[in-house]
Amino acid sequence: MRKKIGIGLLGLGTVGTGVAKIIQKSQGRNPLVSEIEIVRIGVRELNRPRSIELPQHLLTQKPEEVIDDPSVEVVVEMMGGIEPARTLILRAISAGKSVVTANKAVIARYGEEISSAANKAGVYVLIEAAVGGGIPIIEPLKQSLGGNRIQRISGIINGTTNYILSRMAKEGTSYKNVLQDAQKLGYAEADPSADIEGGDAADKIAILCGLAFGGRIERSKIPTQGIKNVEIRDIEYAAQLGYSVKLLAIATSFETKSTNKSSIPLAAWVQPTLVANEHPLSRVNGVNNAILVEGDPIGEVMFYGPGAGAGPTASAVVADILNIAGIHSLGSTNNSLDPLLAASSWRNCHLVEPSEIIQRNYVRLNAKDTPGVIGLIGNQFGNHGVSIQSIVQFDASANDAEIVVITHEVTKGQAMKALSAIKNLPEINSITAHMGCL
Amino acid sequence: MRKKIGIGLLGLGTVGTGVAKIIQKSQGRNPLVSEIEIVRIGVRELNRPRSIELPQHLLTQKPEEVIDDPSVEVVVEMMGGIEPARTLILRAISAGKSVVTANKAVIARYGEEISSAANKAGVYVLIEAAVGGGIPIIEPLKQSLGGNRIQRISGIINGTTNYILSRMAKEGTSYKNVLQDAQKLGYAEADPSADIEGGDAADKIAILCGLAFGGRIERSKIPTQGIKNVEIRDIEYAAQLGYSVKLLAIATSFETKSTNKSSIPLAAWVQPTLVANEHPLSRVNGVNNAILVEGDPIGEVMFYGPGAGAGPTASAVVADILNIAGIHSLGSTNNSLDPLLAASSWRNCHLVEPSEIIQRNYVRLNAKDTPGVIGLIGNQFGNHGVSIQSIVQFDASANDAEIVVITHEVTKGQAMKALSAIKNLPEINSITAHMGCL
Repeated sequence: MRKKIGIGLLGLGTVGTGVAKIIQKSQGRNPLVSEIEIVRIGVRELNRPRSIELPQHLLTQKPEEVIDDPSVEVVVEMMGGIEPARTLILRAISAGKSVVTANKAVIARYGEEISSAANKAGVYVLIEAAVGGGIPIIEPLKQSLGGNRIQRISGIINGTTNYILSRMAKEGTSYKNVLQDAQKLGYAEADPSADIEGGDAADKIAILCGLAFGGRIERSKIPTQGIKNVEIRDIEYAAQLGYSVKLLAIATSFETKSTNKSSIPLAAWVQPTLVANEHPLSRVNGVNNAILVEGDPIGEVMFYGPGAGAGPTASAVVADILNIAGIHSLGSTNNSLDPLLAASSWRNCHLVEPSEIIQRNYVRLNAKDTPGVIGLIGNQFGNHGVSIQSIVQFDASANDAEIVVITHEVTKGQAMKALSAIKNLPEINSITAHMGCL
Repeated sequence: MRKKIGIGLLGLGTVGTGVAKIIQKSQGRNPLVSEIEIVRIGVRELNRPRSIELPQHLLTQKPEEVIDDPSVEVVVEMMGGIEPARTLILRAISAGKSVVTANKAVIARYGEEISSAANKAGVYVLIEAAVGGGIPIIEPLKQSLGGNRIQRISGIINGTTNYILSRMAKEGTSYKNVLQDAQKLGYAEADPSADIEGGDAADKIAILCGLAFGGRIERSKIPTQGIKNVEIRDIEYAAQLGYSVKLLAIATSFETKSTNKSSIPLAAWVQPTLVANEHPLSRVNGVNNAILVEGDPIGEVMFYGPGAGAGPTASAVVADILNIAGIHSLGSTNNSLDPLLAASSWRNCHLVEPSEIIQRNYVRLNAKDTPGVIGLIGNQFGNHGVSIQSIVQFDASANDAEIVVITHEVTKGQAMKALSAIKNLPEINSITAHMGCL
């Protein structure tokens, strides 16, 4: 019999328990699962009641003991948060152990440091669970789509906000009410800011960007707009125009034939966005996620599935463990890494200025209900080189008109200039919403 | 500099040319692409005009020369058809060379023979392009979903029939007219039988079945119903009831806790099927494919994209070449295979009798337009233990009524018994359509 591959878990919450359950009951799964053995588990409390039976001697409150245990070949980090997760991941790497982690916050911020340490040590750091929950997206980007020049990624990659927007659309209930209910049901956290302000989606698009375009970008420079200001009326107007409203994370290449190849210009942003009903992302509802990848020569492929939850996330974590186990079983001794699986940066990339982002815009305006106001708005857009796809007046209160404009593609800089001129028109009370449009 | 990995192409049609183009222009793709070198190409004609420039000395009309060339490490078979493809694949394996193939017909029929030869020789046979065109589905099933117990796969995996059904639905045009037009446009072949009779989809579901459930099934025993008899009126009635009609290939596990584990019972079939509008497969139109995988603990994931075409297929072929190149670069010397990538059968599976297939049914009946006929039909279904979800009379000609029944889930055996009793009722003229329903 082949020697089993020893793994050490850091964290035994819902995901950790899910992983342990898969490994404990390997029957009916890929036979390689039965060659994995949990040999040590770092937990916060030793005696908490758990939904899984595990030999008590596996548990320890000292995560370092998990890493330093010589029978642990792979360290599986499922603690979340920046510290001590980052330090423990680096410690595992120094100890010559491959790491599997679901920690998007650490990878989005310290990916460079972690990946270069891993390459130096000749170990893998695999992160399938960090983006899209159970959906295979990291591995396809690293391997299955490797022959392509990726041009664009657009994703619904935060389950909480997609759940909230889906329920707002379905029930016509306000953002606040749905959020409160989502918190009660466990779909949103007590402090939901990382989700609803778009930070979680920005973490994830930063990670996808690195894999798709081959170079890291500065996470902190990603323009990020959350869903707090999305109103029911925006969702309703969008529906009347044939769109749904989704929080999208988008990354796109600005590379052209004349680009200076020393650093590839990219744009990446997170924003509530109108998605046309025919678009494959428009039907992705509830806590589901979906990632659309556009590349040459493949065209468009989409990956869809549960973006969160213990089971799906555990599935992704086990996939990474299996990948390492598969490679280990080759018995390679020269300490080299499979470059596809290791997937380090291979060129420099940088983010363009936010004003250079190109997209269609959805703008809602509150105007005085006077004749000719639509013409005035149209003229101002035109004067600033922004061409309009549609401009519609929706019903509003006594003296005010609610006007919705959808523009053609234009740089953010141009759109903002046009809007600031429009804002100064005496007939305009305020610009009440501004979102993207696919 | 690392030595490049030499590959030999068998076939330089549209897919072969697509593969060569990716490798020739590696800039902007995964850096491993630049480590692949085409060293020999087997073609039918040496001097045909081609859309790609290649050194003439690479070409040969003798495919054996490609295989036997000592600088060829990986043989890429893109000839199609059963022979000589099968023999050449086996010859490459005997020569100790890994094989990449897009040949679903060979793999569905001779997969067992090829895979056991490959395992004995310690080489890989990779087949990402054989199912779903460019969509990554083979690799996710082998690797990313390996922690799951797969319960079911449902796929739109034939682009030609999906194109025809989509156009029938959109334009209200008959099957015959759309087929003729599809042939003119190159979306259907001159002899379209493999596509429209469902054989191509059956080949592909046989392959997916082996990967998802870990054991081979007999390709020839898959019940297969094509789209020839799908009428415009079926598509219209389905739309009125909230469904679209798709040619689905389905494979599902019948394993329960009490199943004798010496062989796992599966069902697999190909059939035109009504798909509810809320279902993620319902919006997959044109030549696109999509495969929905259900497993424990992941739940449902779907893979969507272009199911055919030179570019997408070439993308999948290159993915396989990269995977082999990545492993080769590890320099493992003990001739062992990564068990995830090699993915041989690991248990016995068998197909249950077609009569045991469980599904909902769509049935269209032509009946005499007499009072009580709906009650009679309902009673007959009830007498045979088939419960009905809906039964609707649609407009029809002078004396005849057109009645559409959608049943709840029931075995095919029971459904057929009920239908044969209904057919014998004097009030029933004929059973005019019978499809599945999701």
